[in-house]
Amino acid sequence: MISVEEALSRILAEIKALPTVRVPLAEAAGRVLAEEVVAQEDIPPFDNSAMDGFALLSTDSKPQGDQPPHLRVTGAVAAGYVADHAVEAGTAMRIMTGAPVPPGADTVIQVELTRHGGPESDWVEILQEVKPGNNIRPAGEDMRCGQKILPRGTELGAWEIGILATLGWATVPVVRQARVAILGTGDEIIEIDQPLAPGKIRNSNSYLLEATVRRAGALPERLGVARDTVESLREKFAQAMTYDLILTSGGVSVGDFDLVKDIMAEQGQVNFWRINMRPGKPVAFGHIGGVPLVGLPGNPVSSAVTFELFARPVIRKLQGHAAVFKPQVEVVVEDGIQERAQRRHYVRAHVRWQNGKFVARTTGNQGSHMLTSLLQANALVIVPEGGPEVPPGTMLKAIMLDWPEDTQEEALASS
Amino acid sequence: MISVEEALSRILAEIKALPTVRVPLAEAAGRVLAEEVVAQEDIPPFDNSAMDGFALLSTDSKPQGDQPPHLRVTGAVAAGYVADHAVEAGTAMRIMTGAPVPPGADTVIQVELTRHGGPESDWVEILQEVKPGNNIRPAGEDMRCGQKILPRGTELGAWEIGILATLGWATVPVVRQARVAILGTGDEIIEIDQPLAPGKIRNSNSYLLEATVRRAGALPERLGVARDTVESLREKFAQAMTYDLILTSGGVSVGDFDLVKDIMAEQGQVNFWRINMRPGKPVAFGHIGGVPLVGLPGNPVSSAVTFELFARPVIRKLQGHAAVFKPQVEVVVEDGIQERAQRRHYVRAHVRWQNGKFVARTTGNQGSHMLTSLLQANALVIVPEGGPEVPPGTMLKAIMLDWPEDTQEEALASS
Repeated sequence: MISVEEALSRILAEIKALPTVRVPLAEAAGRVLAEEVVAQEDIPPFDNSAMDGFALLSTDSKPQGDQPPHLRVTGAVAAGYVADHAVEAGTAMRIMTGAPVPPGADTVIQVELTRHGGPESDWVEILQEVKPGNNIRPAGEDMRCGQKILPRGTELGAWEIGILATLGWATVPVVRQARVAILGTGDEIIEIDQPLAPGKIRNSNSYLLEATVRRAGALPERLGVARDTVESLREKFAQAMTYDLILTSGGVSVGDFDLVKDIMAEQGQVNFWRINMRPGKPVAFGHIGGVPLVGLPGNPVSSAVTFELFARPVIRKLQGHAAVFKPQVEVVVEDGIQERAQRRHYVRAHVRWQNGKFVARTTGNQGSHMLTSLLQANALVIVPEGGPEVPPGTMLKAIMLDWPEDTQEEALASS
Repeated sequence: MISVEEALSRILAEIKALPTVRVPLAEAAGRVLAEEVVAQEDIPPFDNSAMDGFALLSTDSKPQGDQPPHLRVTGAVAAGYVADHAVEAGTAMRIMTGAPVPPGADTVIQVELTRHGGPESDWVEILQEVKPGNNIRPAGEDMRCGQKILPRGTELGAWEIGILATLGWATVPVVRQARVAILGTGDEIIEIDQPLAPGKIRNSNSYLLEATVRRAGALPERLGVARDTVESLREKFAQAMTYDLILTSGGVSVGDFDLVKDIMAEQGQVNFWRINMRPGKPVAFGHIGGVPLVGLPGNPVSSAVTFELFARPVIRKLQGHAAVFKPQVEVVVEDGIQERAQRRHYVRAHVRWQNGKFVARTTGNQGSHMLTSLLQANALVIVPEGGPEVPPGTMLKAIMLDWPEDTQEEALASS
C-alpha cells in the first residue's frame, strides 16, 4: 500500500495543463489566464472628478476678505464628454463625477461646499478653500500604461473580469476547460429512473461525479454504465478516449469481476494502487489512448472522497490552476472518533468557526456505503494511520472542502 | 443616511423566493430543494456484502479441533444478481462486494481469511471464526423507508445529488433560478471592444456583475448601457421588466444626470438611500413593474462591494436559500488602516489562516475607482464608523467572500 501523498505525487507528475484557447470575456470567469496582462493604457485614462461639483483654479478658492470667492460659471462637463474651453482665473465649470477635468482647472470642489443659483446658475460661491488636486483622480492612478496587472496563471474571478473589461480585453487567452468522461461500471447498477429490482442499486456515482466535476469548473459528460464484461468496457472506453480525462467508478478492486484494470492494461498504461487510506483503498490511475484515467472505487462515499483527494487536483492541474489543493486547518473534534484508524481515515465532518476556533462534528456512521455520512459534511478530518482513538476535544487537521484551493505547498501533502 | 443593516433588512423584507420548477437531476446542483425528500425504499435495498469473500453460516466457521472448517462451495453471487439457492449448513457461496447475501447465510468472511482452490474451487477452508452479521451491510442501514432525508430548503451540492440519484429522483422540485438583467448607465461608458475616446471609459461593471451573478447561481443577462436620457433609460427598463431582478450600475447619485431614480419613480416604486458606508454610499432599491431593482453605484469598486453586501443576498433569497449572508470571522489586520473611517468602511483585504489565526492584509489604495484594490481580495474588513485609525495588529471582523454563505443569524447584521 502506498500513501495518499505518494499516490498524489505520482498522479500529478503525469498531468499537464491543456492548451490555450481564446474565449469571449463573458465566458472567461473561473478560467485560468494563459498570458500575462499588461495595461496598454492609463486607467483611469484621464484626470477626472471624484465628485459632482465645480472645477476651478485652486488659487481662486482663497477667501477675499470675509467674502467667499464669487466665480463665473462658463459651462458644464458631464461624464463622457470633454470641455470645449478652458477654465480661466475667475471662472469655474460645473463638473460631474467621472467627467474629465477641463484644461486650466487644477482642483474640484464638491457641490455641497458651494452656493449657487441652481442647475443653470452662471455663478458660484466657493465656501471652502481647496488645495490643488482636490477630488481629482489622476490618469493612471489605478493602472499605469505598461504596468503588469495580472500574471499568467491567474484564476479569473468576477473582479479580474472587471479589470479585463476596463482594459479592453474582449477576448481572453485561457487554459481550455477539461472535458471529463464519467463512466459507471457494474451489473448491479441501474439508471436512476428505473424501479429497483432484486440485487440492483441505482447509479448514484455518475450523477454525484457530474455535479462535482462541474463544480470544479470542468465539463462533465456521463457515458452511462458499463456492464461487467470485457466487451461492454471496451466499447465504453473507446468512447471515453475522446475526452481530456476519464473518471470511472467501480471495477478497480481485486474481485474476479473487477475488469477495469484489465481493460486499462490492455488499452493503455495502468497504475493500480492500494492506498493506505479509508474510505477508498483501491484507486487506479493510468492512461487509455493517451488520456489520463482516474479509477475511483464503487462505494459511493469512497468514490466521493477519492474524487476530492485525487481527481479534483487532476482537473485543477489540467485547467492550469497553480493551486490544486483545498486548504487545511486545525480543528477541535467536538464529538471524537471512536474507531481506531488502522489506515489513515478521512472522516466526514461539519466544521464551523465558533468562539475563535474551528470545531468539527462528525457526520455519524462512517461506513463507505453510508451516503448520508456526506450530508452536512464540509470537511474531511484527517485521522493519522495507526493512531489511538480520538477522544472528544482532540485537535486534528481537516481539509476544508468548501473553501477555495490555496497555494499552501503543504496542503494535503501534510498529514 | 441609514445603516447597512437597515438597508439590508428593508430590501430583504420585500424579496420572496421564486416559484418551484421541476428539473432533471443533472441540472439540480446548486439549486434549493422545494419539497422534503423522504426515502421511499430502504437503502441499501437488501442485505449485501461489504467484501469479496464467502457467505456462510456463522456456526460453520467454528474450528473443528485443530482443523479449519472445510465447506463445500455451491455457487457464486455477483453484484447485481441474486443467488438461485440457499446456503445450507456445511456449504458456502462465493460472494462479491455489493452482492445480496444469499438466503441461509448469516455472515460473510473476506477472501483473505480463507484458503480455497482458485476462482472455480468447489471447496473453501475458513481460517478465522466469524460472528453473525460480519461484513454484512443490512438493508436500510443508510436510509430507511419513510425516513426524512433532505428537508425542504436544502441546497443541493454534489453529495445531495448522489443521494437523490440513489433514491430515484430523476427530476427534482427546486426553486427557479433568478434571471437577472444587468444594465449599465452613463454616456461615458463604451463597449469593451471599442478604443478609448476622450472622456470615455469601458463598461467594466456589466461584465463584473455578470460573472458575480453567475457565481451566485443565477442567470445573468447584460442589456447593454443606457444613455443619460430619459428615453434611453425607459427603453432599457421596458426590456429589463421581463426579468426576476434588475441590477443597474450608475445613475443613482445626486447629480443632474443621475436619472435612474427618476425613471424608477416614474415606472414603479423607489427607495433611494444614502447608506452610511464606504465605498458605495448611494444605493437605490425599489420595483419596476413589480420586478425588484437594486441600483448600484457607478464606481467599479463601489459596484462590486455593494453587490456583495446587498444584491447577492437578494439573489440568494430569490433562489430560496435560507443562508443569504457570507460568514464573518475575527481577523488580525496585519498592516493596519491609516485612514479614519467616518462612514463604516469595507476595506478589501486578503485574509489567510496562519499560525492558528486569520491574518488580513489590505490591498492598497482603497479609492472607489481603484479596481486593482479588488485584486487578491477575498474578504472585506469592517472598520466601524467614527472609529479611530486602525494600527497594525488590530482585531476586526471580516466578511469572508470566498466562503459559502452560512446560517449565522448575525452575519453582516453585526458590525
